[in-house]
Amino acid sequence: MRVDGIHRRTIWPAEDGRGVAIIDQRRLPHRFVVLHLETLQDAAVAIRDMAVRGAPLIGVTAAYGVALALSEGRRDDTAIAEACRILRATRPTAVNLAWALEGMAAHLLALPEDARLDAAYSEAARMADEDVVINAGIGDSGLGILQRLAEAKGDAPLNILTHCNAGWLATVDWGTALAPIYRAHDAGLAVHVWVDETRPRNQGASLTAWELAQHGVPHTVIADNAGGHLMQRGAVDVCITGTDRTTARGDVCNKIGTYLKALAAHDNGVPFYVGLPSPTIDWTLTGDPAAIPIEERAADEVTHIAGQLPDGSVAQVRLTPAGSPAANPAFDVTPARLVTGLITERGVAPASADGLAALFPDRAAA
Amino acid sequence: MRVDGIHRRTIWPAEDGRGVAIIDQRRLPHRFVVLHLETLQDAAVAIRDMAVRGAPLIGVTAAYGVALALSEGRRDDTAIAEACRILRATRPTAVNLAWALEGMAAHLLALPEDARLDAAYSEAARMADEDVVINAGIGDSGLGILQRLAEAKGDAPLNILTHCNAGWLATVDWGTALAPIYRAHDAGLAVHVWVDETRPRNQGASLTAWELAQHGVPHTVIADNAGGHLMQRGAVDVCITGTDRTTARGDVCNKIGTYLKALAAHDNGVPFYVGLPSPTIDWTLTGDPAAIPIEERAADEVTHIAGQLPDGSVAQVRLTPAGSPAANPAFDVTPARLVTGLITERGVAPASADGLAALFPDRAAA
Repeated sequence: MRVDGIHRRTIWPAEDGRGVAIIDQRRLPHRFVVLHLETLQDAAVAIRDMAVRGAPLIGVTAAYGVALALSEGRRDDTAIAEACRILRATRPTAVNLAWALEGMAAHLLALPEDARLDAAYSEAARMADEDVVINAGIGDSGLGILQRLAEAKGDAPLNILTHCNAGWLATVDWGTALAPIYRAHDAGLAVHVWVDETRPRNQGASLTAWELAQHGVPHTVIADNAGGHLMQRGAVDVCITGTDRTTARGDVCNKIGTYLKALAAHDNGVPFYVGLPSPTIDWTLTGDPAAIPIEERAADEVTHIAGQLPDGSVAQVRLTPAGSPAANPAFDVTPARLVTGLITERGVAPASADGLAALFPDRAAA
Repeated sequence: MRVDGIHRRTIWPAEDGRGVAIIDQRRLPHRFVVLHLETLQDAAVAIRDMAVRGAPLIGVTAAYGVALALSEGRRDDTAIAEACRILRATRPTAVNLAWALEGMAAHLLALPEDARLDAAYSEAARMADEDVVINAGIGDSGLGILQRLAEAKGDAPLNILTHCNAGWLATVDWGTALAPIYRAHDAGLAVHVWVDETRPRNQGASLTAWELAQHGVPHTVIADNAGGHLMQRGAVDVCITGTDRTTARGDVCNKIGTYLKALAAHDNGVPFYVGLPSPTIDWTLTGDPAAIPIEERAADEVTHIAGQLPDGSVAQVRLTPAGSPAANPAFDVTPARLVTGLITERGVAPASADGLAALFPDRAAA
C-alpha cells in the first residue's frame, strides 16, 4: 500500500542485499520511521519490542532474522537452531512465529552449509511473497461481497466498520480484513470505513487510521462504544474484522471487543464478515470455544496511554486514579452463529464446520 | 459518600451562609479540589465548563445559582428572570436544568421581594435534599435485587458491571446506578464493580473509579471492549447503568456504548438493570426510540485525551493521525426488550409501558 504516495511493504531487503528494513510501528501514527535490521539481535529486539506486530509480519521478520544470523558468520546446524531458539522466545505465544521458524529450519538444514546463506534470504523473501499472495487472495474473495452491497446502495458510499488493525501493517502487504477494502477502493468503489479506536492499545486509532489515510481511503475514527449506535441508525452496511485464531467450527478469536460488534451487527441485520488467511484456522479446535485461553495483558495498557503533546513529542499519561486496579483481557471469542462468512484466500466460507471443511477438504480432514 | 474518610456531598453551603462549595470534577481523578461559588457568574461558569456535571447535580447547582444572584442585590422579578436565562443558557440541552430553574422561578415570584433571598437558599437546599432522598430510594429499591443475586453466589463477591458515571458525583449524593451498590456495600454485602472506562470522555475510568475507591468499594477498571468477554466467561453477575432519558415504553437513552453491554448481557443471560430517578422518564416519548435525537459532540474528545504526566501535571495528548477525522455520538438507545428492570425510587418496574404505568399511575396518564 502507499505511504506518502510511494508503494511500500512493511518489510523489505535493504539495498546492500544483506540488511532488512522495517517500519517502526511503535512510532506510528505520529512519525514514519524506517528501522534497519543488520543482525539476529536486531530482528529479535524488533519483534520483542513490537516495532513489528501482526502475526504474518512477525513470522516473516523472524524468517529474515535467521538469514541475518547466518550472515554474521556461522552456518552450521547448531547456529541455525540457536537463532531459531532466540527468535522464538521473543513472542512465546505467537503461532506464526514458531511455524515460520520451523519452516526456515527444515529448509536450511536440508542444504549444505555453503548454500544456506543465499537460501535463507530466498526462503524469507518467498515467505514474504506468499503472504502477499494470500492477502491479495482475501482481497479478491471479499471484493465481490462489497460490490454486491455497493450495488444495493446506489451512489452513496458503502460504510464498512472494522475493529483493531488487520491491515497491511499487520502483514507484508494488503492486510487481511482490510484487503477487500483496499481492493474495492482501488477498483473505484466508493467506500468509507468506520475505524474503532480499539482500546486499550488503540491499534485502530493509530495504525488503521494511519494506513487508510496514507492510501487515501475515506474513514472516520470512532470510540469503540459508538458502533452499536451507528448500526441502529443505518450508518453501517457491513463489518469486516480480522482474527487471531479461528476454530474448525468457525468461531473467531480476535481483539477484545469484536464480540460486541458482532452482537450489534446481528441485532441490526448488518452482515459481519471476518477476513483471514487459512493458516489462522486451528483445525484442532472442534469443541466449545469457551475453552480457548485468553491472554491477560498488563494493566498499565488500560491505566496509561501514549499520545502526542502539543510540542510534537510523545508522552505517556495516566488515565485512572492511582488506587484503582485494572484488568486487560486481550481477546474475545465471537461465536460462529454471529459471523456471516469467513473471507479466505480460497473464497468465502460459511462460519461452520461444514462450511470450512467444504472450502478446505485437504486440511479439515487432518 | 466518603472522600478521604469524610462524608461529603457534591455541593454544600459554605460556612458564611452565602457562598456555595462544589467539587471541581474536571480535576478528578488526579486532584481533589473544592471550588467556592460566590456569584451568579461563578455558578454559570461552573456548569458551562463542567466543573459540575450529571443532570441532578446541574439542576441543584443552577438553583443555588439563582440564590447567589439574589445575594448580589436585586431581587425583583426581572432580576430572577435574567438569572434564570443566564443559567439556562449554560447547557441548553439539559432537561433537569430547565426544570430546576422553572421550579425556582415559580417559587420565588410568588413571594414578596424581601422574602426571596432566604427562600432561594431554602428552596435550593430543599432540592438538594430531595435529590438525596430520591437516590437513597433507588438504593433501597435495588438493594433487594443485589441481595437475592448475592445469596445465589454464596461467599464469592457479587460482580456488577457499570458504564459511565451514574454515581454520587453525578447527583448530590448516592448516585443513581451506583446507589444500590453503595447501599449493598454499606450493608456488608461483598460486591466488586467492573468499571467501563467509557470512552471518549472516560467518566468511568476517572469519576466512577475515583468515587468507588474513596468509598472503599472493590472495583476494577476495564476497557469498554472487555465487558462482553467477561460476561461470556461468567465474571459478571449483573449490570447496572444510569440513564439520561427513559421513554414511556422503557427504552433507555444513556451514554454511548450502553446498548452494546445490554446486548452482551442478553446474550449471556446476565440481568441488565437501569437505575433512575423518576423525573428522567419522558412520558411524552411513546413511539419508536429511533426518533430520539442523539447529541454529536466535538471530534477532539475522540482524537485527544487528558491524563497525568509522570511529574504530576495534567496534559492533553493526541491519539490519532492528524489527517483522520473522528465522529462522536454521545448517547445510544437501549431498547426496552434488553432491559431486565428499571430501578426507581418507588421500586423496580419492568421496562415496558405497562410496567412503568403501574408504578407511576399518577404520571403515566399525563
